[in-house]
Amino acid sequence: MDYPNDQAPGAPVRSGIPEHGRIPKYYAVKAHIALLIGELGEGGLLPTERDLALRYEVSRETVRQALRELLLEGRLRRQGRGTVVAGPKLEQPLSLASYTEGVRRQGRRPGRHLISLDRFPCPKALAAEMGFARDEEVWHLERVLLADDERVGLESTYIAVARAPRLDVDFEPDSSFYSYLRERLGIVFGDADERIETVLATPREALLIGTPPALPMLLIHRLSRDTGGRPLERVRTLFRGDRFSFTTRLGADLR
Amino acid sequence: MDYPNDQAPGAPVRSGIPEHGRIPKYYAVKAHIALLIGELGEGGLLPTERDLALRYEVSRETVRQALRELLLEGRLRRQGRGTVVAGPKLEQPLSLASYTEGVRRQGRRPGRHLISLDRFPCPKALAAEMGFARDEEVWHLERVLLADDERVGLESTYIAVARAPRLDVDFEPDSSFYSYLRERLGIVFGDADERIETVLATPREALLIGTPPALPMLLIHRLSRDTGGRPLERVRTLFRGDRFSFTTRLGADLR
Repeated sequence: MDYPNDQAPGAPVRSGIPEHGRIPKYYAVKAHIALLIGELGEGGLLPTERDLALRYEVSRETVRQALRELLLEGRLRRQGRGTVVAGPKLEQPLSLASYTEGVRRQGRRPGRHLISLDRFPCPKALAAEMGFARDEEVWHLERVLLADDERVGLESTYIAVARAPRLDVDFEPDSSFYSYLRERLGIVFGDADERIETVLATPREALLIGTPPALPMLLIHRLSRDTGGRPLERVRTLFRGDRFSFTTRLGADLR
Repeated sequence: MDYPNDQAPGAPVRSGIPEHGRIPKYYAVKAHIALLIGELGEGGLLPTERDLALRYEVSRETVRQALRELLLEGRLRRQGRGTVVAGPKLEQPLSLASYTEGVRRQGRRPGRHLISLDRFPCPKALAAEMGFARDEEVWHLERVLLADDERVGLESTYIAVARAPRLDVDFEPDSSFYSYLRERLGIVFGDADERIETVLATPREALLIGTPPALPMLLIHRLSRDTGGRPLERVRTLFRGDRFSFTTRLGADLR
């Protein structure tokens, strides 16, 4: 196993194996399979569970536990009845650019699949957050996010009907919402507050995104404002934790 | 269950329950316990597994699965032999301020616990990333992060020995490394690239942070530069996913 001086800077120290104390058996198997993943390279087909159990002289349940973690971490993925080495995670910049632009910049083809577009009086909690009146009508737009036709996330957007009165008529739901606001309505973004956390997919989300339930997801909350500082939209976007990472450039803003 | 118009903007739509299809039994129990959590409030003591199983007329295993997810998500926490309602996640700004400053700003007491401080020739992967020569000596500083004496993360920092030659002598390992660089060595940060992802804790990390193994964590990679644009440090920081979220303010930098 590797020691700090052989260590890749982004990898867990000592491959995550305790200095003292026992290594769980599944984790030793996981470390071996991780090496195998490196040898096989992206798209490489992993031996079957049975073969891995024979090779490492452990039970199939132990192999399954190791594979489960490698799948959750996005280092392996299911393909048909087999398991193959996954590509690197998509890197999405944290910026006011849309999902569409972020995915395109990585040479992937963005897409959206409409789940629902509803209109109703502003819910109480949203009214408080956005400074809306309770009788203000809002749109709720919910879409599955796609990259090269793979379902990778779920986006839920609230915006006042007054801001985009014809959303149900002249917005193409598989296109960029930000392009629509900008090009059709002339709405310019000023700034946004974002909060990122990791959560587990709910059964509904897992069903819509097509992931195993309880997969760790990255959840981004966004509250954006127009150039006049008025709240514009409230977004909840869920990204597959095994498929995405987020990047940002920090300036020396504090001293 | 709630529908979009009763919906908190940050919550999963329809409480995460599919429109069609079956609700897993444990998830129905989880939704009930989530309501109970709201009623009890922070610090409130949850009934025992046995009582919950009787109340919802399900097996204890079903209750345990619901509790496991609520614990992973940081909505509950173990306290002694009981389970209590957890407080909100700590919000840490994504900025070049140190962990110390971020935690203080929330009225919590930051701390660090030294795991190791080693010195060795620059590992190959790190040399490539930082533009160091292979015979450049580097420090590796590894510390557990504390908030009010609770272990909440693990930080692993690489920096050239030439930058901080007396790190092993005059740096107090439970203090802010950034304050040390700034105040003792006059090193000023220019900017940094960060990447955020969700990963599972390794057994070593779980042991050091004192979490259940395979807890979803937020991992932040940082490569910072000085004001002259020269790479300064490479950091891998792991934060408990059930205890932290990260915030940022986005400007209209793109158009």
